Amino acid sequence: MTFAELLQKRRSVRDYEQKAVGIDTINEILQEATLAPSASNNQPCRFVVINCRETIKRLSDESKANLLKDFAQKKASLSPEYVELLKNEKFNVFYNAPCVIYIVGSRAVHSLDIDCALMASYIMFAAAARGLGTCWIGLGEHIRDPKLRAEMGMDENLRIVAPLIIGYPKENPAPSARNAPKILRVISQAKG
Amino acid sequence: MTFAELLQKRRSVRDYEQKAVGIDTINEILQEATLAPSASNNQPCRFVVINCRETIKRLSDESKANLLKDFAQKKASLSPEYVELLKNEKFNVFYNAPCVIYIVGSRAVHSLDIDCALMASYIMFAAAARGLGTCWIGLGEHIRDPKLRAEMGMDENLRIVAPLIIGYPKENPAPSARNAPKILRVISQAKG
Repeated sequence: MTFAELLQKRRSVRDYEQKAVGIDTINEILQEATLAPSASNNQPCRFVVINCRETIKRLSDESKANLLKDFAQKKASLSPEYVELLKNEKFNVFYNAPCVIYIVGSRAVHSLDIDCALMASYIMFAAAARGLGTCWIGLGEHIRDPKLRAEMGMDENLRIVAPLIIGYPKENPAPSARNAPKILRVISQAKG
Repeated sequence: MTFAELLQKRRSVRDYEQKAVGIDTINEILQEATLAPSASNNQPCRFVVINCRETIKRLSDESKANLLKDFAQKKASLSPEYVELLKNEKFNVFYNAPCVIYIVGSRAVHSLDIDCALMASYIMFAAAARGLGTCWIGLGEHIRDPKLRAEMGMDENLRIVAPLIIGYPKENPAPSARNAPKILRVISQAKG
């Protein structure tokens, strides 16, 4: 697959086939994604792979509850539609994805958000190149329960940046609309 | 070019041919990069394109001076080698790149670092697909002089996230070493 094709193919996918994603495939994708750049080649990203629907449901419930708590305490802003959605017990923030990859890293790393976002884009492309869909689920990042975090192998020092769902897409969704690039200024070499 | 080839080709490049990068090529790359995902498809990235060596030098000097000032006031930490480098008048943080693209956006956007980093990776790939090299230059982000910011079309509300240099590589640098992916835990479906 060429990059131009891949660019068109990479979409945020929220509806998946039942089919599980093999751990060998996940390992291949993560191996390929090590080529992502990071500040000073520091490579701060760590991964937690959840290949279990029951655990995914528990993570969804935990994240929803914490986000609603933050909203109630005015620590988070949410649109009324999101509040409704999060209060709906049947809503799984990870949709019906068979697998979630959490990209996490040390709170001490100043560039962690950026390093993990670069890593996320590599994982998204490496997945798309294998016919897999992905979506970054910001709603799924609020995992605080010490028991759940321990199950994930995450000590207190680690911060979740990017929860990515991954699976075989039911269909390739239509592209969402994009604006033309907003270029504020072009400063060109003076002629002469 | 396939994605596998592109993955191997995308490197942080710090040494460029004299050859300028045409504005049509930059426009093509930015157009292609609009396909980058962003939180809620909010598309907050804005661009400033500096295709002028004299302005690039001024931006380098401004950023170096501010970073050294922050360091002196203990607002930034820098290794002794970096301090030496920044004090060297001949050192241009953008190396000899003929073009710099600043990815910027509103301070009000909570996910700005992540949105701009995803955009940066798309620009890096779109550039590599055209035989161009890029490098994220964190040292070049400290632009505060109101006159310079006005020249860049940047009001107070905007924050620089990603200064990217772009140009035709003198040579394709050897890949920098990468560790194997650090997977903290795999949680798999219980069998039976």
